[in-house]
Amino acid sequence: MNLESLAAPRLAQQLAFILELDKLKSVWRRSYLINGTRHENSAEHSWHLALMALVLAERANEPVNLSRVLKMLLVHDIVEIDAGDTFCYDMVGVGDQAARETLAAERIYGLLPDEQETELRELWQEFEARNTPEARFAAALDRLMPILHNFSTEGKSWREHGVTAAQVVARNGNMDEGSHELWVVAEALIAEAVARGYLSP
Amino acid sequence: MNLESLAAPRLAQQLAFILELDKLKSVWRRSYLINGTRHENSAEHSWHLALMALVLAERANEPVNLSRVLKMLLVHDIVEIDAGDTFCYDMVGVGDQAARETLAAERIYGLLPDEQETELRELWQEFEARNTPEARFAAALDRLMPILHNFSTEGKSWREHGVTAAQVVARNGNMDEGSHELWVVAEALIAEAVARGYLSP
Repeated sequence: MNLESLAAPRLAQQLAFILELDKLKSVWRRSYLINGTRHENSAEHSWHLALMALVLAERANEPVNLSRVLKMLLVHDIVEIDAGDTFCYDMVGVGDQAARETLAAERIYGLLPDEQETELRELWQEFEARNTPEARFAAALDRLMPILHNFSTEGKSWREHGVTAAQVVARNGNMDEGSHELWVVAEALIAEAVARGYLSP
Repeated sequence: MNLESLAAPRLAQQLAFILELDKLKSVWRRSYLINGTRHENSAEHSWHLALMALVLAERANEPVNLSRVLKMLLVHDIVEIDAGDTFCYDMVGVGDQAARETLAAERIYGLLPDEQETELRELWQEFEARNTPEARFAAALDRLMPILHNFSTEGKSWREHGVTAAQVVARNGNMDEGSHELWVVAEALIAEAVARGYLSP
């Protein structure tokens, strides 16, 4: 689309970024929809997390600015448009994930007017660094969601990839830093998943 | 999932609502992804709109509370889990849309603890009523997005359903109430779509 002929330069940049985002709907995660019919994509996952934040904000360890949590969750996976979804139990993929995602952020956020590029990229960096209450809470939600999806599909993705309870605990234990209450639920879900045979010990 | 055995009652209600939301990922809209490969669903559409609001907030006719706009866009299609996506040019479907959606809101938001049920249902009602600056702006974005998608796919959905430019203008003219700047762009896109043969006059 030749946006420059239809809108002033700043608005054309903003629209180009918005159109580019459509590609996140074609980035597929390892987790399945709860009805088990297909994998979910990173765009619909981001929506789901944002609503989860809206409903569960009271569960954060520290008071959070909900608006910042929402923004962070809306942008947190945008880099996957270029870098792809890295499965958290894939130790090879995790190795160069940060480098791939940094390049992606430069290109994609770079479509925006300068100050918006900075604002959105900093939200993503804050999410990744987990050194604010908002980022720790947002990250905790991002950890809990796949556990809920796996539990609801009798461990479909865990079983396909041979994931063990020890791996799930090691990967997700830092959820406790964002929401102790939700980590307690996650621990109960993991134990129950092992008891039901959804997850190997 | 037997949530009651794993979490206290209030948290169990919140998690039941969050799990129910997964179904919005299986509600299909008439619009296509920009790459044309498939229809988009209402969950990923809601994510896309929320990010659009984040980037285009400066285009609202009146100052808006962005956090309220984001929340409204995150919830605006939840009723479609029961009521389905009503194609805006389907005059039969539009006829009983409000009644179907009201029943859906009762059931779905009713899964939440009382005060959260009220808060989220009121956000949805505000969006539908379009009588606040936030709702008018959110509705304008919801109108612009399908025009961008149609334009980007050479009118794929417009052509499939025999939609005319007059219908698009009639349906979307109230975008002007939320964002005059974006309505001007929409008008330019519609005119250009007719010129290119993506849309019949």
